[in-house]
Amino acid sequence: MIVRKRPGALGLMLAWKGSVLPHVMPHIIFAGCFSAIITWVARHHYLDGVIEYTLLPFTLMGIALSILLSIRNTATYDRWWEGRKQWGQMVYEIRSLARTSGIYLAEAPRRRLLLNVLAHAHLLRGQLRGENVQAELPGDLPAGLISQALSKRNPAEFMLQQAGALIADELKAGRLDTIAAAALDKHLYGLSSVQAASERIAHTPLPFAYTLLAHRTAYIYCYLLPFGMVGVAGWFTPVFTAIVAYTFFGLDRLSEQMEFPFGRHTNDLPLDAICRIHEISVAEALGDPAPELLQPVKFQLQ
Amino acid sequence: MIVRKRPGALGLMLAWKGSVLPHVMPHIIFAGCFSAIITWVARHHYLDGVIEYTLLPFTLMGIALSILLSIRNTATYDRWWEGRKQWGQMVYEIRSLARTSGIYLAEAPRRRLLLNVLAHAHLLRGQLRGENVQAELPGDLPAGLISQALSKRNPAEFMLQQAGALIADELKAGRLDTIAAAALDKHLYGLSSVQAASERIAHTPLPFAYTLLAHRTAYIYCYLLPFGMVGVAGWFTPVFTAIVAYTFFGLDRLSEQMEFPFGRHTNDLPLDAICRIHEISVAEALGDPAPELLQPVKFQLQ
Amino acid sequence: MIVRKRPGALGLMLAWKGSVLPHVMPHIIFAGCFSAIITWVARHHYLDGVIEYTLLPFTLMGIALSILLSIRNTATYDRWWEGRKQWGQMVYEIRSLARTSGIYLAEAPRRRLLLNVLAHAHLLRGQLRGENVQAELPGDLPAGLISQALSKRNPAEFMLQQAGALIADELKAGRLDTIAAAALDKHLYGLSSVQAASERIAHTPLPFAYTLLAHRTAYIYCYLLPFGMVGVAGWFTPVFTAIVAYTFFGLDRLSEQMEFPFGRHTNDLPLDAICRIHEISVAEALGDPAPELLQPVKFQLQ
Amino acid sequence: MIVRKRPGALGLMLAWKGSVLPHVMPHIIFAGCFSAIITWVARHHYLDGVIEYTLLPFTLMGIALSILLSIRNTATYDRWWEGRKQWGQMVYEIRSLARTSGIYLAEAPRRRLLLNVLAHAHLLRGQLRGENVQAELPGDLPAGLISQALSKRNPAEFMLQQAGALIADELKAGRLDTIAAAALDKHLYGLSSVQAASERIAHTPLPFAYTLLAHRTAYIYCYLLPFGMVGVAGWFTPVFTAIVAYTFFGLDRLSEQMEFPFGRHTNDLPLDAICRIHEISVAEALGDPAPELLQPVKFQLQ
Amino acid sequence: MIVRKRPGALGLMLAWKGSVLPHVMPHIIFAGCFSAIITWVARHHYLDGVIEYTLLPFTLMGIALSILLSIRNTATYDRWWEGRKQWGQMVYEIRSLARTSGIYLAEAPRRRLLLNVLAHAHLLRGQLRGENVQAELPGDLPAGLISQALSKRNPAEFMLQQAGALIADELKAGRLDTIAAAALDKHLYGLSSVQAASERIAHTPLPFAYTLLAHRTAYIYCYLLPFGMVGVAGWFTPVFTAIVAYTFFGLDRLSEQMEFPFGRHTNDLPLDAICRIHEISVAEALGDPAPELLQPVKFQLQ
Repeated sequence: MIVRKRPGALGLMLAWKGSVLPHVMPHIIFAGCFSAIITWVARHHYLDGVIEYTLLPFTLMGIALSILLSIRNTATYDRWWEGRKQWGQMVYEIRSLARTSGIYLAEAPRRRLLLNVLAHAHLLRGQLRGENVQAELPGDLPAGLISQALSKRNPAEFMLQQAGALIADELKAGRLDTIAAAALDKHLYGLSSVQAASERIAHTPLPFAYTLLAHRTAYIYCYLLPFGMVGVAGWFTPVFTAIVAYTFFGLDRLSEQMEFPFGRHTNDLPLDAICRIHEISVAEALGDPAPELLQPVKFQLQ
Repeated sequence: MIVRKRPGALGLMLAWKGSVLPHVMPHIIFAGCFSAIITWVARHHYLDGVIEYTLLPFTLMGIALSILLSIRNTATYDRWWEGRKQWGQMVYEIRSLARTSGIYLAEAPRRRLLLNVLAHAHLLRGQLRGENVQAELPGDLPAGLISQALSKRNPAEFMLQQAGALIADELKAGRLDTIAAAALDKHLYGLSSVQAASERIAHTPLPFAYTLLAHRTAYIYCYLLPFGMVGVAGWFTPVFTAIVAYTFFGLDRLSEQMEFPFGRHTNDLPLDAICRIHEISVAEALGDPAPELLQPVKFQLQ
Repeated sequence: MIVRKRPGALGLMLAWKGSVLPHVMPHIIFAGCFSAIITWVARHHYLDGVIEYTLLPFTLMGIALSILLSIRNTATYDRWWEGRKQWGQMVYEIRSLARTSGIYLAEAPRRRLLLNVLAHAHLLRGQLRGENVQAELPGDLPAGLISQALSKRNPAEFMLQQAGALIADELKAGRLDTIAAAALDKHLYGLSSVQAASERIAHTPLPFAYTLLAHRTAYIYCYLLPFGMVGVAGWFTPVFTAIVAYTFFGLDRLSEQMEFPFGRHTNDLPLDAICRIHEISVAEALGDPAPELLQPVKFQLQ
Repeated sequence: MIVRKRPGALGLMLAWKGSVLPHVMPHIIFAGCFSAIITWVARHHYLDGVIEYTLLPFTLMGIALSILLSIRNTATYDRWWEGRKQWGQMVYEIRSLARTSGIYLAEAPRRRLLLNVLAHAHLLRGQLRGENVQAELPGDLPAGLISQALSKRNPAEFMLQQAGALIADELKAGRLDTIAAAALDKHLYGLSSVQAASERIAHTPLPFAYTLLAHRTAYIYCYLLPFGMVGVAGWFTPVFTAIVAYTFFGLDRLSEQMEFPFGRHTNDLPLDAICRIHEISVAEALGDPAPELLQPVKFQLQ
Repeated sequence: MIVRKRPGALGLMLAWKGSVLPHVMPHIIFAGCFSAIITWVARHHYLDGVIEYTLLPFTLMGIALSILLSIRNTATYDRWWEGRKQWGQMVYEIRSLARTSGIYLAEAPRRRLLLNVLAHAHLLRGQLRGENVQAELPGDLPAGLISQALSKRNPAEFMLQQAGALIADELKAGRLDTIAAAALDKHLYGLSSVQAASERIAHTPLPFAYTLLAHRTAYIYCYLLPFGMVGVAGWFTPVFTAIVAYTFFGLDRLSEQMEFPFGRHTNDLPLDAICRIHEISVAEALGDPAPELLQPVKFQLQ
């Protein structure tokens, strides 16, 4: 995620990092060159009588294109924002578990419970990003537990089950009553819902047919454009084509970047930084020294 | 559901599987041919004096058409995504039931409870898809229970009622108190809400009048188009008509595919794969060997 | 509600039942005739010098019209879909009450509770539709209770209060503890929310000013259209006017039909069929023979 | 709120009550006269060479205007509908409190609790509308309590606190256990959320910058329009200007009326009628004679 | 937040405070001057043959621009409104905690609990605004507690943990049972969710790529506009360019102001005033004299 003060107008025009421009530049240049060729051909009257120029089909395709791009961008932005909301829920579930466990549990099991949950968050981050997070798991966790977790198909889920087992132990030992167990379990339920929602977003692409139809319509549009414009815009045709291509390919690429918000691209969600917030929450609740917040590096928060 | 890495620009232009193109191709060709005939007729001046060319009615109809297609596509996409969310809720209800039952129940009734719930998920999948899933029900379930379930009008619901009866037995035997029973029942309530929502989506089409009005407006639009365009676009008229038809019929077909997301079409939700996730969740919670995740076959996850 | 397989392209063009066409046909014909008269007048040059033809005001009005129609259609579709969701919630509240009551209650009070709730659903349906449903109330209910309910201002609500009284009796007799009573009451709370939401949708029209502004703008638009188009479209003017009128009046009528979704129009929600689902749920939970699902008659599910 | 059967097409064109037309009529007439002057000036060729006519800037401003009006109208309609939903939630919270209090409380404290809650609803209505509702408070409430409430900054909130105090008394007297107290308190929590949401809507206007930008753009648009249209539309210019002004000023005024839905304007929510529904719910639950539903007077429900 | 009666039409045209006009004025003037230069150049025929004038590319870019601005403004308005909703939830969580603590707690711990929560609200406000709020914390809080809080990374969160510790003390001393503890803790959970949501909105900007693409497209649009318009609009070109720039730069700036709604800009949320509402709620619940509501100063509520 890019975190920076809003630059001035000029700074915004020149910003490169976080922009979709580098990704769509080749397509823009290609569309512009194609348009230049068409313009050259038309200027030499090779197209006369073949095509007459009309606004109509572009207006019509524009209707379909705007519906497609609008639904697709709204949907992908919603995925991105829902991802952020889910990880924001994780923040208050962990803080609340820290608080509620302080009400019902003794010091030692409380610490173990919170470490399990912290490991859950790190492991989920690793699963969503396809990374090995073993080095960042809380050091106080028994090594056996960690290796047992990593042998499972779903290590993050295993950690929540372990937290449940810990509550069961306390209940069976008579140190908790069923109400307190249910009150603690409710926060594990919340974390479980965050995990399932994250997995849903990470593993369910937008319907492929949407992506195809939006992509194809945008391309057809941009490559037909010179034919519709060359008669009136002359040598400005390649310029206009490139600009229109920039906006359409930019929107196309933007929605592609928002679609899976848990990666490490510049516009993805800062899961590392959120996990650090969890570490601070748990440390401060347990009275341990808390680490620093993660800071953006070159405007980017991981 | 199509699961594939996003292909390059060329790959996207040529992708066939998951596209709506095969479904709307005949309609596009028909509209294109009709347009070619009109163009031929117009070029031979048989329409002179009969029709003069104007952009206006197309702009106007475009307003109504864009509202219709936009509301319809938004609504059907929301159904598709809600279907996915509901089955994502099923994921965490089952995992949470596995965890909570580990807190309150002994090993044997816990296993029976989870198998009932797993059978519920498979049976619901079968009911939504109109398929026989008897072969995929958990093998440890008593055969009598399964045949009893299949004799009911709503076998999936019967399995949840059975899970409730199991909790009732434990409560009456004094092995659960009312609080623990309520805590377990809450997850059955969640599963019940998933089932009712799935049945709602599967059995409530969009209002037929919407489908009709959107479909008719799109068709009238495409078949009037050649008359409005032939005067300025000449022999490009059939090309433009075909492209406009592609986008409108494509949107129409897309929303039709999203409307009922529980089938086996390429863009439908992968219920088989989600049921496999449930099997893994239950197996890992019970300490059984867990099956593999389902993998897409030719990019398609069932 | 119309339930039918999607017909082919031709079938969709010709479908009559469920279409808004019959309702708006007179208005379309009237607008078309008006347009024909204007065309005749204009062709005889009686309007020359009075009006010159311009696209501009139609484009401008189109902005306001598209906002109005879009907000209005979105709002009414949302009412329709929320109505369906509420009655879908009723499905799982009743099923869950059947399950939860099986956990905590004995057979006789459980049956009475479920019959009360079934009567609640039927009575609510009757209140929303302004129909007498006395014949369809569960036969096992005491006649005195039914006549007492019907003497109230809100019979459906009375049935829920009776269900609460039944829980109170069990609690006072010591056959329930407060937790179990609260767990049962929670489903009555859910049913109460469904009722209040249904009453909200049924008795709160869209702000009248919206309906007025949308309706008036659409009419002014359609009746000014011939003046703006006759100069370029000639005798096609009445045809185009009729088509534009079809889409706008169609959208207007569509949103009117969605506004109150609990009636008996072709596009209204199938409350009878949903009540039948409740009867099946209760019957199967109680082990009684369950009735059949309601089937659509001539594509229409009541 | 206007409640009337949908009038026929002609009735809709002529309806006056509930329309925004009376409010925007002066502005429409002013814009029309201004446009007539410009037309006169242009027809006498005083503008020749000064302005040439172009559609372009209006199309462009139209984009910004449609975004502004669309967001603003969607937002204000959502406020109106959320206000209605909140007061619909109040309906089922009060009914459910009536039911739940019947389960756990004796007759006398139950009656007092429900009267407190009824007074809460009336007082909240009074606070939202800036009216004195003392005459409509339930007659059985002790006069001292009412005058104490009215001496507070937030009388409605005081009544909920009193209801809480009543539950506390019952709990301390041992006539309730903590579970039953929590079950009753949950409905007070619901009422508290309704109050806070109502206060939020009533006291938080849309960001002023939105209102300004939307208003200014609409006015600039309407007053530039004659310049852009007079060259082609001649003496129809004032007519078209007035019609465009009607739609834009109408949308502007409409969103203003929806912004604060708790007043006494024709399109505001019928809080009096909803409070009457509460009175009926409480009376029927307590077995008292219930008052009649409020009826609309001249189509308007207060 | 600007709070004022809606001024008349003229007052709205002239309002300055709360408007985005001061912020975008330099950009409007610059775009206008640029446009004037282009007009001068074009009028001297230096551009003849270089550019011919066409509406087409502007219509096309308009599609992309309207999608971008629409999604961005909807998203930022939603952030603003969600921020307000969260702080509205805080209102009823605190009131409900006041009521529920009156049911279960004695006077002294109740007062301490509510003061902790009040301090939480003030500290959160300070954290969101980057201000020191020490002077406004409740005077009755022990100084040691305050300085301990301020030494933490997250002082607001610390106060909630302290509230939890207070409940734990009461529970361990046997003055609360587990149910009452859970009922109180539920409101702390609500406050925790408000905090996490506020932090989410305050620290997660919109994806930078959105801001960039919207900003760039709007600028390119406005600076290309004179070229497309000068051929038809003559010396009106700079006027129209300035007006179009006003609407686009205004929308751009508006969405920037809504993006982070917790600051002290004119359109930001009145957190001071909401904290005053909390103080009144707590004071009236405890029977203390309540302070006055904050009043707007020069139409602005802080």
